[in-house]
Amino acid sequence: MTKEIKVGIIGFGTVGAGVAENLINNGEVIEKRTGLKIIVSKIADLDITTDRGVTVAADVLTTDAYKAMEEVDIVAELVGGTTIAKDFTLAALKLGKPVVTANKALLAEYGEELFSVAEENGVNIYYEASVAGGIPIIKGLREGLVSNRIERVYGIMNGTCNYILTRMENEGLDFEPILKDAQELGYAEAEPSLDVDGFDTAHKTAILASLAYGEWFGMDPIYVEGIRDVSVMDIEFAKELGYKIKLLAIIKEANGEVEVRVHPTLIPSNTMLGNISDVFNGVMVTGDTVDDTLFYGRGAGREATASAVVADIVDVALNLQYGSHRRVPAFKLNPQYNKLKNIDDIETRYYLRLQVADKVGVVAQLSKALGENNISISSIVQKETKDEESGNVSLKIITHKAIEKELKAAVSKIESLADVCDKVKIFRIEDI
Amino acid sequence: MTKEIKVGIIGFGTVGAGVAENLINNGEVIEKRTGLKIIVSKIADLDITTDRGVTVAADVLTTDAYKAMEEVDIVAELVGGTTIAKDFTLAALKLGKPVVTANKALLAEYGEELFSVAEENGVNIYYEASVAGGIPIIKGLREGLVSNRIERVYGIMNGTCNYILTRMENEGLDFEPILKDAQELGYAEAEPSLDVDGFDTAHKTAILASLAYGEWFGMDPIYVEGIRDVSVMDIEFAKELGYKIKLLAIIKEANGEVEVRVHPTLIPSNTMLGNISDVFNGVMVTGDTVDDTLFYGRGAGREATASAVVADIVDVALNLQYGSHRRVPAFKLNPQYNKLKNIDDIETRYYLRLQVADKVGVVAQLSKALGENNISISSIVQKETKDEESGNVSLKIITHKAIEKELKAAVSKIESLADVCDKVKIFRIEDI
Repeated sequence: MTKEIKVGIIGFGTVGAGVAENLINNGEVIEKRTGLKIIVSKIADLDITTDRGVTVAADVLTTDAYKAMEEVDIVAELVGGTTIAKDFTLAALKLGKPVVTANKALLAEYGEELFSVAEENGVNIYYEASVAGGIPIIKGLREGLVSNRIERVYGIMNGTCNYILTRMENEGLDFEPILKDAQELGYAEAEPSLDVDGFDTAHKTAILASLAYGEWFGMDPIYVEGIRDVSVMDIEFAKELGYKIKLLAIIKEANGEVEVRVHPTLIPSNTMLGNISDVFNGVMVTGDTVDDTLFYGRGAGREATASAVVADIVDVALNLQYGSHRRVPAFKLNPQYNKLKNIDDIETRYYLRLQVADKVGVVAQLSKALGENNISISSIVQKETKDEESGNVSLKIITHKAIEKELKAAVSKIESLADVCDKVKIFRIEDI
Repeated sequence: MTKEIKVGIIGFGTVGAGVAENLINNGEVIEKRTGLKIIVSKIADLDITTDRGVTVAADVLTTDAYKAMEEVDIVAELVGGTTIAKDFTLAALKLGKPVVTANKALLAEYGEELFSVAEENGVNIYYEASVAGGIPIIKGLREGLVSNRIERVYGIMNGTCNYILTRMENEGLDFEPILKDAQELGYAEAEPSLDVDGFDTAHKTAILASLAYGEWFGMDPIYVEGIRDVSVMDIEFAKELGYKIKLLAIIKEANGEVEVRVHPTLIPSNTMLGNISDVFNGVMVTGDTVDDTLFYGRGAGREATASAVVADIVDVALNLQYGSHRRVPAFKLNPQYNKLKNIDDIETRYYLRLQVADKVGVVAQLSKALGENNISISSIVQKETKDEESGNVSLKIITHKAIEKELKAAVSKIESLADVCDKVKIFRIEDI
């Protein structure tokens, strides 16, 4: 007889409903493939009356999450946030229940504590859905590429930002109006900060960096910049140079030093990553043995996220079936680096955009400030069009590789020049 | 104490040497990540004197593969071909040893037999490296997307073909001179048929289709066409229409009917798949829940293939450690379709290229032949340039969706027309 595995879904929101729906609709396929009958046994939420488009027996729904967790084999924590979700997760682990979660914020901030409680209780936490939605990147990175020293990970991992940047590029409109429209269309939250200021990407980045280099980094070492300062003018300048601007997660190692950062980045247009548009996500992992690999798909949404959550549920169910509960542990401390690099010490190429007075000698002053800080210019372009009112012109400069702190010193000097107006716009370039 | 797992590599060719090298160089990383110490304990080959750039202790090398297999925990079959490789694989399974293989031809042709012997002996076969080299597509498809009904799989899975087609496109040269150069550069075999006639892609397609739809199909149901008939003129015509020509594996299901085919295909240039160039491979899997996902990377080569083989070795080693030997069995019969569609019954759009006499009424005759077979024309273009000698002109026609057998009837009629010279060139279009 096929063994039945009982799943308790904690949190009946968008993702919770998607997971219930997937398990109900595709339970037969999963059983055919694995021999396991996975049952949505309990769904807990404070609101169990709203119609989520999923039909379940009346005794499945409950407002008592703790009781529900006691009665199931696997707990799917789909509440979100880092308060009650943490309580539920800890409670489940202490009950000896394996937990599947999509909660990147919870893991990025409390991963170490949760993993340690899981280990103490001989259970496991699976979190495929926490990074890049439906894309099986966690499994790909830690199982598929297990034999590789990871040289780099580049990620476009926030659908809202990628959607906004794609529309800015296609429509020639600036950030604010596109954000507003995206909010009306449901592609951006009413409170968009988590997405557009880069924190959501940073949560995912923290998780991938930790798996790549064997230390649960948390959020502290991650440098984060969002996309609010990207203007359509920058996107168009970048385009002329053969680049797109993407909110890019960059994780890389060289000589034992690891960099982990999230910021708007110019990447070559004619690359696989450069072609990832709209709400789609992509993660490029470069291993010393496999070279470049790319994992692409939908990074969010009810169905795509459910696909990843249910894949984890199946993995956990197989572990229950075979008694291999911690075959691939939630996280195994295995440091493979010596030092985390401060943002000031990174070396990269830069895109600078300045408003300057249309006068003789300005470029000479800029060059001098850059040169004094060991920054050499790769290209410099001054647009013919000048601002009607001020008489200022836009200059864009692409540098050769430079050290961030030297770049900052040069920019500080440049911003003090009488003929330079406004702050200098700075974006980093990644020549993938 | 860390448990040591002994691996026997059977076949010390390019891939065998790559696997040995990866296990030796990255054994420490693998141990950090998994807690397993995986040792290259035996390497068997008839030639154990040639230097493969890998240093192993003298007692590791042996010419006695059978004895080697007895002494190890895991057998990596890296001999290739379907004769002695089959004997070795069967012998290993009968010894109760799990087998890891990169051998797509062996699996496509003898999968059922091998899987059944594996099951009888309570062991398993892993074959990540058999499809798309270093890309973890087998794991991605059968574990990462386990909860999805698979709607489509598109694969660019032969690096040699993709390299040749990319160079034809970039350099405007025809198939033969590029093939010759590719052979000189080592990107194509001296006997290129396995690659350029599509059989290698078909082997991989057979494996993916089987995992997607739960029947070990073997090679029989797969329609295969290679790339020898793709001319640079077709590539240029396609480009004008916004398409690239790729050797594409197409696996799809609709209303219980499954199609499995491999042929040169026009696909839109501005898609992720359309951007896969040179020797790179990519597999797009569309699931009912996850929607489109793409897995991209190097599909061949010593290192990339080794990455996948060693990932499997680690999976098997974890199974040995946890006693979960058949947690994800080599293949589980679980048919999810009713019927395999014959190529004559498929419905798709077509690209036709004809040489016709430059006379009044030719297009009317063509349209009539097409119309009589229920084929409607989406676009028709006649180039101004005519062939100096013959006075003939090239016509290209793009059809709306049509049934293959009706298309063939129309083309047969068209080829019988007095004003149509040569055979009609036919390629299928996939509007991804």
